[in-house]
Amino acid sequence: MQKVFGMSFDPLTLKYNEKGLIPAIAQEESTGDVLMMAWMNAEAVQRTIETGRVTYWSRSRKQFWVKGETSGHVQNLVELRIDCDRDCLLVVVQQAGPACHTNRKSCFYTALKRGEEVEILSPLVTKN
Amino acid sequence: MQKVFGMSFDPLTLKYNEKGLIPAIAQEESTGDVLMMAWMNAEAVQRTIETGRVTYWSRSRKQFWVKGETSGHVQNLVELRIDCDRDCLLVVVQQAGPACHTNRKSCFYTALKRGEEVEILSPLVTKN
Repeated sequence: MQKVFGMSFDPLTLKYNEKGLIPAIAQEESTGDVLMMAWMNAEAVQRTIETGRVTYWSRSRKQFWVKGETSGHVQNLVELRIDCDRDCLLVVVQQAGPACHTNRKSCFYTALKRGEEVEILSPLVTKN
Repeated sequence: MQKVFGMSFDPLTLKYNEKGLIPAIAQEESTGDVLMMAWMNAEAVQRTIETGRVTYWSRSRKQFWVKGETSGHVQNLVELRIDCDRDCLLVVVQQAGPACHTNRKSCFYTALKRGEEVEILSPLVTKN
């Protein structure tokens, strides 16, 4: 048995909030687009690294949420980055299809323009 | 007295956590780099929009934090975006100098590579 690579990084060295969660921002590698922000617990961080599939913790469903598991709109991990305070993560990803549950590429599809909310991204047309 | 532009957007329509805060991700307009993540309360959102200077709420100092007020490393607001759940903001900015207090361009200067933490950004050399 050969260990492919060692892993000295310990997700428990990150700083979690009082609910044991850390915010994770997903950014698309190819475009630099910020796709979404969701939350991870230490186990989700571990699973994301081990599987290469970005895995969040769903606060509403109180369960692990392998992004795209049901929709197919998976996020393949390219690189995980940690901020200076160790209390926020940036996951650089390859995004399959739209990241947002509204079928838009990014969850940040509403912009303020002259004090008004404007929709700046339309839902993607997906092939059947 | 002429009102320059009306503002119908109400920051109170956003969803704040139990501490009255919403996460705000700062992204540099010109490069797409994700610079940092910090928190705003409704008043900080309002001030950011009104002044064009990105203003957070410092959780440690418990006061408004006009980014760059002391360092000069200000963030000028280009566009404020709201996510689908209205519980996270993306501020697209023009960043003066480094965004991170460590003098690095971005707070996300640590990357996991083969299970090890690697520094991927060095502190900027600033002119005196």
